[in-house]
Amino acid sequence: MELLRNKVINEGIVLEGNVLKVDSFLNHQMDPVLMKEIGREFTNRFAGEQITRVLTIESSGIAPGIMTALELNVPLIFARKQKSLTLTEDIYVETAYSYTKQQSNDITVSKKFMHPGDRVLIIDDFLANGEAAFALARIVQQAGAQVAGIGIVIEKSFQPGAKLLTDEGYRLESLVRIAGLADGQVQFAD
Amino acid sequence: MELLRNKVINEGIVLEGNVLKVDSFLNHQMDPVLMKEIGREFTNRFAGEQITRVLTIESSGIAPGIMTALELNVPLIFARKQKSLTLTEDIYVETAYSYTKQQSNDITVSKKFMHPGDRVLIIDDFLANGEAAFALARIVQQAGAQVAGIGIVIEKSFQPGAKLLTDEGYRLESLVRIAGLADGQVQFAD
Repeated sequence: MELLRNKVINEGIVLEGNVLKVDSFLNHQMDPVLMKEIGREFTNRFAGEQITRVLTIESSGIAPGIMTALELNVPLIFARKQKSLTLTEDIYVETAYSYTKQQSNDITVSKKFMHPGDRVLIIDDFLANGEAAFALARIVQQAGAQVAGIGIVIEKSFQPGAKLLTDEGYRLESLVRIAGLADGQVQFAD
Repeated sequence: MELLRNKVINEGIVLEGNVLKVDSFLNHQMDPVLMKEIGREFTNRFAGEQITRVLTIESSGIAPGIMTALELNVPLIFARKQKSLTLTEDIYVETAYSYTKQQSNDITVSKKFMHPGDRVLIIDDFLANGEAAFALARIVQQAGAQVAGIGIVIEKSFQPGAKLLTDEGYRLESLVRIAGLADGQVQFAD
């Protein structure tokens, strides 16, 4: 996806520890036109998958998620990273470790909003080790629903998540794939 | 806003402690068509205000915020509720107390994305005591920018935030105003 790739080239900042900071258009400030295009691109790629729900995780997944849900004309669910007082009962819970934040999070989704028969498209901003994506996929399975696909904005192809997800048989579509971040430079995988 | 009002009537759940749970369309599952209409409505109400940035706070403000930013064709910034490892330096910080979660949060915005001359539209999902809105407004002032307006999806008019904000001279536009939640029923203010 050329627009996104150019954003990564022009605005991405490589930090130590294989961190790619894209807070000018995705993780803090967001470019709404880019988000809309991302929603269209995911919709094109997963056309024919009969998606009934989009599932993402707070916070940076919400904007690409809502734009994809709008194009697909289905609801978006955003998983919570910790329990809030107004959502305590009847939830699916899975744990995921965040390497960026160096902590484990309980990821929760209300049982009200996902059911057997649902075909769920999982959307997230980054894929590195796959912790969040696998936790979301386990929640879909807990609900007796199906993972119709996984859509990622930026895949770090040099970390194990992408291979682990495809080895499990999930259909993975990443809009930008990064082969490495050596010497402060972004190397693309394709 | 009729579409939103009907959603509140049909899907809102009144809990103890003056909590209105709207997790089927705003706070956990989100209706993307409603979010788009909310973005259009805020854009109509604040037309002529020469907005240069939309500012919201994670997580439930992001979807209405990105739809408003798309209509206005300006960037969205979502404030973080706690510092993350990739955003440590050069940030504006303000503290806000969340009555729902019963904790104080540090709310942060990178100095890179807000500047003197910016006219900022603050968007949030709920207005109750005004803690989050005031913290966001103080961040805008720290940046030397101007608060062009405050757009709220659901205002609890029986709590002090709305009066406090308008007394301060802020232009406040709430899409639905709730006068009370007594006896498990939603009473609208208008």
